[in-house]
Amino acid sequence: MEKRVITLSREFGSGGRTIAHRVAEQLGYAYYDQELILKVAKESGLAEQIVEKYDEYATHKNSLLYALALSAGAGAGGTLSFVSKVQQAQAKIITDLADKGSCVIVGRGGDYVLRDREDALHVFIHADMQFRAQRVVSVYGDNGQKPEQRLRDKDERRKLYYRSFTMREWGDVHNYDIALDSGRLGLDACVEAIITLVKGE
Amino acid sequence: MEKRVITLSREFGSGGRTIAHRVAEQLGYAYYDQELILKVAKESGLAEQIVEKYDEYATHKNSLLYALALSAGAGAGGTLSFVSKVQQAQAKIITDLADKGSCVIVGRGGDYVLRDREDALHVFIHADMQFRAQRVVSVYGDNGQKPEQRLRDKDERRKLYYRSFTMREWGDVHNYDIALDSGRLGLDACVEAIITLVKGE
Repeated sequence: MEKRVITLSREFGSGGRTIAHRVAEQLGYAYYDQELILKVAKESGLAEQIVEKYDEYATHKNSLLYALALSAGAGAGGTLSFVSKVQQAQAKIITDLADKGSCVIVGRGGDYVLRDREDALHVFIHADMQFRAQRVVSVYGDNGQKPEQRLRDKDERRKLYYRSFTMREWGDVHNYDIALDSGRLGLDACVEAIITLVKGE
Repeated sequence: MEKRVITLSREFGSGGRTIAHRVAEQLGYAYYDQELILKVAKESGLAEQIVEKYDEYATHKNSLLYALALSAGAGAGGTLSFVSKVQQAQAKIITDLADKGSCVIVGRGGDYVLRDREDALHVFIHADMQFRAQRVVSVYGDNGQKPEQRLRDKDERRKLYYRSFTMREWGDVHNYDIALDSGRLGLDACVEAIITLVKGE
């Protein structure tokens, strides 16, 4: 069956977002990531700022996030329902987007939401620490934090977010139709392999 | 860099061996799996029968295996050195084969032995239980054991073998350049994706 929808999850600094962009461009598919969060914000009626900040940090319990959740109206014991509300709205939007037309969806547990769709291709991009550390500094600049620590922090947040949302393990090979090492293969080769699978079906 | 050597690991019943055969055939590469064990047997000077039975069951400590190990001359406390001897011989053979010419190597921790080679492509093939259970019965026939139990037993042995050999986790996405779900994608699509990566480099 033709793969009309591509979900792509990626380790921070692996170049996954760039791969997703190129795949979308070459196939003429729509591309969603930040746009998705904004749409969540609108649909769920929550302030954009809160959802943006909250999103992938859902289970990272620090005071800022609690403050944000509280400011959104979640009282004592209400944080979970806030998370749940955001996640449900997001799952609905992902499903709607997939129904609407061919697209590439980056992150946000898209592989989980669309796990039973036969017209979806679920992709995971990873690379070793050295490749990602170099790439993070060259693409995003030096933020004063050690690149390795920055990668570990970001990956940890993605893991927590994914687990809270899906009850599955982020990066578990069984969750994806194709997983690629962008460090060893190069970004272009990853794009090509994905497109082969989309077109070859 | 051109990928001259392909290592392929697979969950039992995923069709990985068939994929490896087709890739080797289409690329004109040599194909190794059982042949490799026989070569190990000859090089290490151990009886073929022992190595054949021992191989992927290395850490599965039942009396048969101990008996086989002992009959090969490993005395009390000598089982580990027996395992180690077989594994070292096998690693040497895998390296020699990779040096000799373009090839596809199935199982035997080939991805670990050749992990630092830039001209190697490391592949993992997996599929869900339902797909594999159906395939095992249709390809290998009914052996009286429940297919799901058969899959779990075999995968467990491969995991133990891999861990004893490599100190890594079998099926961990980071060990492979490409991991594919043969159940969702189909065997032909997997072959095509692998060939794209080999040729595209």
